[in-house]
Amino acid sequence: MLQNNIVTAAFLVIGDEILSGRTADLNINFLAKNLTELGIILKEVRVVGDYENEIIEAVNALRLKYNYVFTSGGIGPTHDDISSLAIAKAFNQKLVLNSKAEEILYQFYGKNNVNEARLKMAMVPEFASLLDNPVSSAPGFFVENVFVLAGVPKIFQAMFNCCKTNLKFGNKIFSKEIVTNLMESIIAKDLTDLQNEYPNLSIGSYPFENGTSLVFRGVEPTIIDLAISKMSNNINKIKTNSIIEIK
Amino acid sequence: MLQNNIVTAAFLVIGDEILSGRTADLNINFLAKNLTELGIILKEVRVVGDYENEIIEAVNALRLKYNYVFTSGGIGPTHDDISSLAIAKAFNQKLVLNSKAEEILYQFYGKNNVNEARLKMAMVPEFASLLDNPVSSAPGFFVENVFVLAGVPKIFQAMFNCCKTNLKFGNKIFSKEIVTNLMESIIAKDLTDLQNEYPNLSIGSYPFENGTSLVFRGVEPTIIDLAISKMSNNINKIKTNSIIEIK
Repeated sequence: MLQNNIVTAAFLVIGDEILSGRTADLNINFLAKNLTELGIILKEVRVVGDYENEIIEAVNALRLKYNYVFTSGGIGPTHDDISSLAIAKAFNQKLVLNSKAEEILYQFYGKNNVNEARLKMAMVPEFASLLDNPVSSAPGFFVENVFVLAGVPKIFQAMFNCCKTNLKFGNKIFSKEIVTNLMESIIAKDLTDLQNEYPNLSIGSYPFENGTSLVFRGVEPTIIDLAISKMSNNINKIKTNSIIEIK
Repeated sequence: MLQNNIVTAAFLVIGDEILSGRTADLNINFLAKNLTELGIILKEVRVVGDYENEIIEAVNALRLKYNYVFTSGGIGPTHDDISSLAIAKAFNQKLVLNSKAEEILYQFYGKNNVNEARLKMAMVPEFASLLDNPVSSAPGFFVENVFVLAGVPKIFQAMFNCCKTNLKFGNKIFSKEIVTNLMESIIAKDLTDLQNEYPNLSIGSYPFENGTSLVFRGVEPTIIDLAISKMSNNINKIKTNSIIEIK
């Protein structure tokens, strides 16, 4: 529904803790918002557990289908951190000790404190480029179009900011919203007609307790304003004073 | 890593609003926790937008791979609610007006208030069974092993409770946790050894600001207790008084 130039992405969340319900994911919404800001369309999210084959399968499916893939989780020092190895295998690359990453860990922890577990965090696919980790030093990395980030939200967010210089941005997507106290079934027909009239807009209808939010998204703000104006008129015809807010 | 009897599930979140970042999903964590309670292992989550082909492709991939698939979103009255049609197509079934669902809407809204948009919510795949919606009446449904629920969290949760009578439960999965103020890289080696000693346990390590949570999951509480006891001893050997809590 949205126009050129289109840049797409997928997000692969890696971690048993999300699937068991122990941990509520906080990265999906952060990434979704931030990619939208950059004009990159998040097309798909997957969550898989800490299983090598499942990670490899998902990474390979997603990296061929979208411009970028971001992953979260599984790059720490413990036995259940298997993302780096799985991603190396997905690209048919060896997992190697990256001397730059090793140096970063030496600087941060002090040479005598870098044990085998910590050194594991300097093991990356052989043709990977590092992504800075301003929070806890151990870097993320990217291989081709796959960006491999930590799962801890604070670190995920910091690493994502370091990705930006390596991303091609798409057209900025603008968004405007009518909030009404009418139920969506009352305005559904007008909304369908409007969507048919403006096929390049993405129009979403989201009910809440006492009404509906209508979200208009697209790359041309003037077109959004036009559609918003038409829909506002329609709503006023159904019932006056039923628009709570346009934002 | 977990033993028989294994029942698996996937969750397909349907909605542009999650992928654009407008709405933060609240259903993944709810479903993950509740399936875990029932001994059903959530193996995979996907989020796709309101695009028919993407929904069909995901439903068909997941329903063949896992015992159950749950979906959220896209069963309302507006043009962007396309889940029911997409799921009918995934099963090669017609989308038909379900007379029981129609009657439910008549009862709830009053016969004169059921317009075309509302009637759309009574359209389900021809061989679907309905799922009660105690919140806002318009029912969910299931076809074979695919359970189709609303996206609004309050309704999603109520519908999920109505699914339970149709689910086979797996072995209850027990979970216990050691919280320590040691960093995970300090205890990583002991943890790896323990995981190798107890392959039927799923042992996860989750760092937080000032320490690490070690989560032991499995179907036999006595085995979990044994592993917890061994790891506690190991941690005390590394540094006394570094266990914050066992819960």
